[in-house]
Amino acid sequence: MPIVRRLLESSLYCENPRESHAFYRDVLGLATLFADDRLVALDAGGGTVLLLFRRGASASGVTIPGGWIPPHDGGGRVHLAFAIDPDQLAALERRLQHLGIAVDSRVTWARGGRSIYFRDPEGHSVECASPGVWEVY
Amino acid sequence: MPIVRRLLESSLYCENPRESHAFYRDVLGLATLFADDRLVALDAGGGTVLLLFRRGASASGVTIPGGWIPPHDGGGRVHLAFAIDPDQLAALERRLQHLGIAVDSRVTWARGGRSIYFRDPEGHSVECASPGVWEVY
Repeated sequence: MPIVRRLLESSLYCENPRESHAFYRDVLGLATLFADDRLVALDAGGGTVLLLFRRGASASGVTIPGGWIPPHDGGGRVHLAFAIDPDQLAALERRLQHLGIAVDSRVTWARGGRSIYFRDPEGHSVECASPGVWEVY
Repeated sequence: MPIVRRLLESSLYCENPRESHAFYRDVLGLATLFADDRLVALDAGGGTVLLLFRRGASASGVTIPGGWIPPHDGGGRVHLAFAIDPDQLAALERRLQHLGIAVDSRVTWARGGRSIYFRDPEGHSVECASPGVWEVY
């Protein structure tokens, strides 16, 4: 029996969180929950939060009024995926084209879902996937 | 207006995905959706999926029957968080203690939520956070 409810926060580590912030706000329409020099938090919908950390800025841990956040940091160009309604896929493609953002790939899944892949400003691989990719969608 | 519904997939990059698979299955109770040598996918609840990638195995892209998955890879010991109901926090602490897993930190948030932090087998920083950490919980 799972004792957690869902994934709440996913992290990207960025050289320039301000630029990535603008990307996720303007391309995917995510609302800002919090922003300072170390961290931007965005409402990704459905009770999930995308965290954009300045690379290296959390590597020694962070003391906050309510306690201490243990060290973490990341590198590379990682993968993350957003759920998207099927009728929004075409709108997203139009928005990407309008903004001059290349689509890396389009995938049709065995269960019937479809995904498109593109890159954020730091090269992280962003997927938007319609229902059918996983049965838990 | 957001054009995505929520975060669907979050990725961890692991030297030993099998060991991490056992951890997330046995400690947090996540169910397996898919597992091969490159990738383990776990149902994290609420329509979210935790992906455990073998480090380096996706760095050149992956061709699948339905298309092509662009290259991605990651390093470091990153942060991810799960939502947990307040009445499950004590059960989780007991489970961690029983399994000999140290709690790195406990945080009480200004809005009233509480978090505990611990490490997965590869040192990724796992948070379990009760409602109140974000208003979107």
